[in-house]
Amino acid sequence: MEISLDPWGTTDIKNYDRLFELFGIEPIEPLLNKIPNPSRHLRRRIDFGHRDLPLILQAIERNEPYAVMSGIKPTGVFHLGSRITAEKMIYFQSLSRKAIVFYAIADIEAYTDNGLSFEETSEIAVQNVADILALGLDPKRTVVYKQSEATPVMDLAFIFSRGVTLNMVEAIYGSRPFGLFVSALVQAGDILVPQLKRFGGPKPVLVPVGADQDPHIRLARDLARRHTEKFHFIPPSAIYHKLSKSLTGDSKMSKRDPMSMLTLDDSPKLAQKKVMNALTGGRTTIEEQRKLGGEPDKCVVYDLYREHFIEDDEKTTKVYNECKGGERMCGDCKLEIANFITDYLNKHQQKRKKLFDTATVLLDEGREKMTGGL
Amino acid sequence: MEISLDPWGTTDIKNYDRLFELFGIEPIEPLLNKIPNPSRHLRRRIDFGHRDLPLILQAIERNEPYAVMSGIKPTGVFHLGSRITAEKMIYFQSLSRKAIVFYAIADIEAYTDNGLSFEETSEIAVQNVADILALGLDPKRTVVYKQSEATPVMDLAFIFSRGVTLNMVEAIYGSRPFGLFVSALVQAGDILVPQLKRFGGPKPVLVPVGADQDPHIRLARDLARRHTEKFHFIPPSAIYHKLSKSLTGDSKMSKRDPMSMLTLDDSPKLAQKKVMNALTGGRTTIEEQRKLGGEPDKCVVYDLYREHFIEDDEKTTKVYNECKGGERMCGDCKLEIANFITDYLNKHQQKRKKLFDTATVLLDEGREKMTGGL
Repeated sequence: MEISLDPWGTTDIKNYDRLFELFGIEPIEPLLNKIPNPSRHLRRRIDFGHRDLPLILQAIERNEPYAVMSGIKPTGVFHLGSRITAEKMIYFQSLSRKAIVFYAIADIEAYTDNGLSFEETSEIAVQNVADILALGLDPKRTVVYKQSEATPVMDLAFIFSRGVTLNMVEAIYGSRPFGLFVSALVQAGDILVPQLKRFGGPKPVLVPVGADQDPHIRLARDLARRHTEKFHFIPPSAIYHKLSKSLTGDSKMSKRDPMSMLTLDDSPKLAQKKVMNALTGGRTTIEEQRKLGGEPDKCVVYDLYREHFIEDDEKTTKVYNECKGGERMCGDCKLEIANFITDYLNKHQQKRKKLFDTATVLLDEGREKMTGGL
Repeated sequence: MEISLDPWGTTDIKNYDRLFELFGIEPIEPLLNKIPNPSRHLRRRIDFGHRDLPLILQAIERNEPYAVMSGIKPTGVFHLGSRITAEKMIYFQSLSRKAIVFYAIADIEAYTDNGLSFEETSEIAVQNVADILALGLDPKRTVVYKQSEATPVMDLAFIFSRGVTLNMVEAIYGSRPFGLFVSALVQAGDILVPQLKRFGGPKPVLVPVGADQDPHIRLARDLARRHTEKFHFIPPSAIYHKLSKSLTGDSKMSKRDPMSMLTLDDSPKLAQKKVMNALTGGRTTIEEQRKLGGEPDKCVVYDLYREHFIEDDEKTTKVYNECKGGERMCGDCKLEIANFITDYLNKHQQKRKKLFDTATVLLDEGREKMTGGL
């Protein structure tokens, strides 16, 4: 069966191993013993694949500079999917003093896709950046910038647009509206901008992404190679995570259906409601569940434990076994994680509030850093 | 016969009147008595057509703000074609204290098309700007900027790329490489940027162009209409001039053949050589020329008088009549204008030298003015 990865739509991937054969993504497995203090995502194979991750591991080992790059569309919601990416940025930043994070605020896309004005996205950007700071990002080694203010990113996109043919982008993305191809080139600009002279020149760059974003990585790697003569780009590395399932059981969380995902903005009360309404891997009756056990592998509530909130491996294993063994009932299980989450959100939102000023300063500094030509 | 206008190639237009029917360009003729102190280009119908020029004339009459916008690719040569556009900018700036000029330095295109580094184009830009200042542009009412440093221009291009379909751009430009369409969108950004809030909001904008650039004008007008709800753009006006013939008799001057055109950088000696080698409308023998008269309408040396250098209408008429009447021989005629030109270039190059500092300051100010998002 063919899998088509759609960075702009909904991708349902049943078999992640197929991505290794189809697109040349490498399995993460053989590298795991080379990574010091593997993160929750790595230990639990939420991160399943990579491209050129050894370049990053080598930079860490040799104490050489590298960058970690990602971005967010400032539409107001920082959901658990954005949080996974943010955690990965923070984790890979923490592995070396030589790591620098680049975080792109895709405000133009928020305007074109969501009709948000630049005034609106300016405010949302501050909140999003405060979110990621509250999650643990070190602002001293972070460049945050709005795409609309980043000339070098646009310049790269413009330059890249020249060697590109319709055939080439259609081979990667399929037949798409013209504007999405331009978006893709701007994203390639975001991915390659950390290697410009102003930021210390060529270096390995790690882009943590959901599996559906691989087309952007392939394009950026292709463009890096095509423009190596002038810019000496190193093709960017990527680490891929499995896509989070929606709370309502659909394949991917959707910003269009608020009940399908938790956001870091949710009031604890709303979060609780979302969790209590989530689809589980439970049986139709309590009796049956006692007899057959639940199905944690199909359960989005179990995902909240394993993927998102519980760091302790023993605890998640215990939850898994209790569910499988018919000892753990869905109502209690939901309540337990809902309480954990409301507590977490309370603390996170407290923390975030205090970081608005730092976020504002970071964004101002980012504008400075991204001013002027190449 | 169909005429296809190619802004990136060589367009040979035999019959300018056809452009009125084919593309809806309006003849300039009926407006001439409404323009105070018509320029040499207007008096001699080098300017033959326009779109919405009355919007500009009305702004002049009512003492309301308007902009005049053009650009240059900083490849090192400021030739007589660039000078025609420059003269038009200066002329329309001079008609009102409320006129402001925008001049875009297309340094990214100089990189993609000509392989010039941004360091190289930075220097050339200073020279080009000094050229246009020496020609008489008022720096106090001028915004000069490099495309590579102009975020709002890029932002507009990026936003425009979203509603655009391949069908739409192919209808205007024909089938073209992807990158040229992106270039076209950036140019539309250049044309519409004077109407952003930071520059005082919507206003009439006049773009003086050669007839072959009309596709860019049509695209910019189309995009202005499509984005009027958010930006309240007024579709830009244009004034069209006939394309200068090459000194060697080809349809258009080409930067690739230095002998085909005079540049403002030419040493007086080289300029003299180019003129003396130019194709004339002369007959094969002096005898024949005395008998039949010359053909000034086919003569590029006569173009140097009429189009480029001689302001005095009586003088050009005299040259024309003498040629037609067989009194004026090509050698003398060339020598006369060559002497005029070498004298002109001497003075121009003197003037320009003193304006490098002003040009540098203008470019620095332009960077400031074009920093930040929309």
